[in-house]
Amino acid sequence: MISVADALAAVLKLGSPVDVELVPLIDADGRVLAQDVAATRDQPPFSASAMDGYAISTVDVAAGDTFTVIGEAAAGHRFDGKIDDGQAVRIFTGAPLPVGAQRVIIQEDVTRAGSSITLRENIDKGHHIRPSGGDFKVGDLLTAPRRLGPSDVALLASMNVALVPVRRRPVVAIIATGDELVSPGETPRDDQIIASNSLGLAAMFRRAGAQTRLLPIAKDTASSLEMDLSLAEGADLLVTIGGASVGDRDIVAEVAGTMGLERDFYKVAMRPGKPLMAGRIGKMAMIGLPGNPVSSMVCGELFIRPLLDHFLGLPAGPRARISLPLAQPLDANSQREHYMRANIEDGAVRAFDRQDSSLLTVLAQANALIVRPPNDPARAAGERTEVIAL
Amino acid sequence: MISVADALAAVLKLGSPVDVELVPLIDADGRVLAQDVAATRDQPPFSASAMDGYAISTVDVAAGDTFTVIGEAAAGHRFDGKIDDGQAVRIFTGAPLPVGAQRVIIQEDVTRAGSSITLRENIDKGHHIRPSGGDFKVGDLLTAPRRLGPSDVALLASMNVALVPVRRRPVVAIIATGDELVSPGETPRDDQIIASNSLGLAAMFRRAGAQTRLLPIAKDTASSLEMDLSLAEGADLLVTIGGASVGDRDIVAEVAGTMGLERDFYKVAMRPGKPLMAGRIGKMAMIGLPGNPVSSMVCGELFIRPLLDHFLGLPAGPRARISLPLAQPLDANSQREHYMRANIEDGAVRAFDRQDSSLLTVLAQANALIVRPPNDPARAAGERTEVIAL
Repeated sequence: MISVADALAAVLKLGSPVDVELVPLIDADGRVLAQDVAATRDQPPFSASAMDGYAISTVDVAAGDTFTVIGEAAAGHRFDGKIDDGQAVRIFTGAPLPVGAQRVIIQEDVTRAGSSITLRENIDKGHHIRPSGGDFKVGDLLTAPRRLGPSDVALLASMNVALVPVRRRPVVAIIATGDELVSPGETPRDDQIIASNSLGLAAMFRRAGAQTRLLPIAKDTASSLEMDLSLAEGADLLVTIGGASVGDRDIVAEVAGTMGLERDFYKVAMRPGKPLMAGRIGKMAMIGLPGNPVSSMVCGELFIRPLLDHFLGLPAGPRARISLPLAQPLDANSQREHYMRANIEDGAVRAFDRQDSSLLTVLAQANALIVRPPNDPARAAGERTEVIAL
Repeated sequence: MISVADALAAVLKLGSPVDVELVPLIDADGRVLAQDVAATRDQPPFSASAMDGYAISTVDVAAGDTFTVIGEAAAGHRFDGKIDDGQAVRIFTGAPLPVGAQRVIIQEDVTRAGSSITLRENIDKGHHIRPSGGDFKVGDLLTAPRRLGPSDVALLASMNVALVPVRRRPVVAIIATGDELVSPGETPRDDQIIASNSLGLAAMFRRAGAQTRLLPIAKDTASSLEMDLSLAEGADLLVTIGGASVGDRDIVAEVAGTMGLERDFYKVAMRPGKPLMAGRIGKMAMIGLPGNPVSSMVCGELFIRPLLDHFLGLPAGPRARISLPLAQPLDANSQREHYMRANIEDGAVRAFDRQDSSLLTVLAQANALIVRPPNDPARAAGERTEVIAL
């Protein structure tokens, strides 16, 4: 058995960042930027008015000053002349600043009569000019790696980056194993259950940026597993669920072994999830998750999400932890690291009473995991503990 | 001008929950459950072993007790006989408990010789039985409304719910308006800029559960806007960007007016985003966002995301706020509510120095908005302020 930290370090060595592909900007949200991209123009590309009002050629003005309006500038419609002393150009937000303009007087601060404006008392002191390149300049970079969000998409559009270099989605093949399993929608025998982990994990992996390949449920026979394993070929990562202790044999490891598995570890000192296996078949990383639903989902959070970050070229390491006070006391922990299903509420964290690794109802209600180190003593309510938000 | 709270209340009256559709469970992640769904079976469907070990028919045992192994039970493979006194069945995690079994002795606590096992000293006191229905029972509900996540998908699978009733994705048509705009990838003239808001907003709305229909950029002419507005027909929500003050006219409102717009409000006492318009054209909700990139994205967060929650049948209201100390002082606020771009770091929040509503570089770096009430006085570092996490 190895520690959780050692197991994660070994898992992260199983893969390396995948290839780069260009995607249209409209499809870039959620993808991971793979290379720095540079603005192809200044933004704004010209000095522009920040308000609706009147552009004038001087900065120092007084109440009662009058100006003759000689034209108009709107967004997309530049005023072609030049503003001299005593002149003004009617201007709208976003319009290019006319030649000679030094300041924009907001429209609420003038009285207009025909083509003449007169400044009122106590006018706004701002100049209301957005300087050329004030947001960014040609060559300014959005730096990789970065998981792109809606604001990044808007920024890239504004930089006129229409095709975005991102990591392709790593392909994760998923195999649930077990004679007791049937797919949702089928009619199970009395001694069978529904395969739940594969769909839940597929959703988790897709959210993390992967493409998933859900393979048929494998029976606990060599031939069934061999067929499924062959269908996984070409994936970046193969995730098997269950089968680590079927009867007295670890049939997944046996069959994967005949297909070239180099096994890195097969047990981790943690709850839930002790029977976690990791290795490589050729170029493909392989992780064997425990069959208990909660164990497999928790191990997905702790090990596979960081590995997917690594495939995507992002900084990859242990899930971020926050420190929160306990809402109620906890018993002493065993010698294995324990990831307790919990809820964060009103700034404190509360573990669920029932921590059995088969309880999906509990996991679905949880929004956090409390991390208990090995042999952590009993803790009182109010003591701070480390928490991973889900 | 109306307050932000009044504006949001009016926006939420523009729509109502959309229809329900059935989706395969594999596509249910991120969708909003529309109706309670009931488990079609108990989970586990039988009392099961929680460990690998030996099932016996008694609870009270002592070191040195011996049992004869009469068979085996594995997941998916029930033992068909009955266990009597002095007998044991080899059993594996998840296997149905044989008739007569009262307790499972974990395998580390026995010595096996042929078909006989002998209990060791100081054995584990647990019974290691997962009772039938211990996770959930037939008829137990997953209650709507609920935005489904990976653990919910696993739970629904386990409940054998293969088709899930969810709200269909509300359709949002998006029209950017302005003679100054060209699409990303085109070559703008000197006085033009790239349309950035429509793609950023589309990404935001898709994340919130919508389906987006990006319409062509509309010129500031009645005919161009009329064409685009006609293309929006059938959408649940039409979002226009810009055009609220083109020259001296509000051309979007004018053209929408000829198409039957019942306008609810057109100005909100906030920064950024004062020129925000809302109303309805027939059955379609319409929101006119300001053209400044940051204004449109912030208004999307504050008004359109709650409206999409409402379309999806979720509880809808103001974005959740948290209270955090300021990392640095803030000047007094004006009479308009101010949503300042900011970063949460190390438990404190820091506003960006530059708050102009044209700066996408600042928005892309921000992970939060500081909410300043109207006329909020100057604040010192360390004072707590309300924050919306982005």
